[in-house]
Amino acid sequence: MDYPSSAIQKAVEAFKTLPGIGNKTAVRLVLHLIKQSEGRISEFERAIEALRKDIKYCSVCHNLSDNEVCSVCSNARRDQARICVVQDVRDVLAIESTSQYTGVYHVLGGVISPIDGIGPEDLKIASLVERVKNGGVEEVIFALSATMEGDTTIFYTSKQLKDSGVKISTIAKGIAIGGELEYIDEITLGRSLLARVPFEI
Amino acid sequence: MDYPSSAIQKAVEAFKTLPGIGNKTAVRLVLHLIKQSEGRISEFERAIEALRKDIKYCSVCHNLSDNEVCSVCSNARRDQARICVVQDVRDVLAIESTSQYTGVYHVLGGVISPIDGIGPEDLKIASLVERVKNGGVEEVIFALSATMEGDTTIFYTSKQLKDSGVKISTIAKGIAIGGELEYIDEITLGRSLLARVPFEI
Repeated sequence: MDYPSSAIQKAVEAFKTLPGIGNKTAVRLVLHLIKQSEGRISEFERAIEALRKDIKYCSVCHNLSDNEVCSVCSNARRDQARICVVQDVRDVLAIESTSQYTGVYHVLGGVISPIDGIGPEDLKIASLVERVKNGGVEEVIFALSATMEGDTTIFYTSKQLKDSGVKISTIAKGIAIGGELEYIDEITLGRSLLARVPFEI
Repeated sequence: MDYPSSAIQKAVEAFKTLPGIGNKTAVRLVLHLIKQSEGRISEFERAIEALRKDIKYCSVCHNLSDNEVCSVCSNARRDQARICVVQDVRDVLAIESTSQYTGVYHVLGGVISPIDGIGPEDLKIASLVERVKNGGVEEVIFALSATMEGDTTIFYTSKQLKDSGVKISTIAKGIAIGGELEYIDEITLGRSLLARVPFEI
């Protein structure tokens, strides 16, 4: 398509590189932006610039951070004896938004996936083993996706942690809260029957 | 929600100001961006900067432009005697993508909408009347939304153009090509019956 202005063209191309943004949406976003005041547009620019310049990763858990150590790891009120292992920063945000977890995190940066060429050495598994070895850790909780890659990663990593004697757990799998039984896929339903838990009155 | 980094926080807030982008999508876009190379991120920055600095509007039709006069108005192969009146730059892009129109445009910058406080003087109606007065125009085609505001704008503007003797038309309204009759709303269907056209064999 021919755009009336090359600035528009370039901005549309830039927005189209983002996930889930196609041509029509990109045009809509760009035309929205150019209607904003100069101040609003340069605010947007500065926000993107900060992404390039100011992003740091926590040296302990590899979470995104403003400082050398992130706000979770440096928080004295978080339980440092419990480490939740996640794939991605997004998962940290998801778990934090539940307000149900008081421990700390370890961000692997992915899962083992031979088909994508991702092996254990590409992930932050060694530094997790190191953290556990340094002592003070009671439990490692794997909160990875319930996929083959996730399971492989749990299996590999827990083998590395075996000698440390730390308690290893995974988050519960089963039907979602509020989920209607008839709409749940048969594998999840089958597994959640096998993994049934005693009901206490 | 608490973000692990203030750069992330600001970028998420910036993306959330865009239409149709909520919190979850904004987080996804930002986390995608920070995974890109520095070069890719600064490309994005420059594209936004260009929106702020390099956008010009055509002095003839008020379309977006790289120069004083846009590529449509300055194209000798476009029929300068036919002016298509649209609400918005987006509509120019939509009509251009059909490849069915060889005339030029006039971008009003909105439609008359008393409820939003937009009167005729807020739109580029006077400059359209001026263009027609300057001569050489045979037809003014209104391609505005089929809403009350669109109709009001057509009515007001065509009254201003009446004395010039220019031919005035609106784009056809009716059922969409490929549309199944049973799914079409009754008002459109009713109107398209009233506005039936002779079928030639």
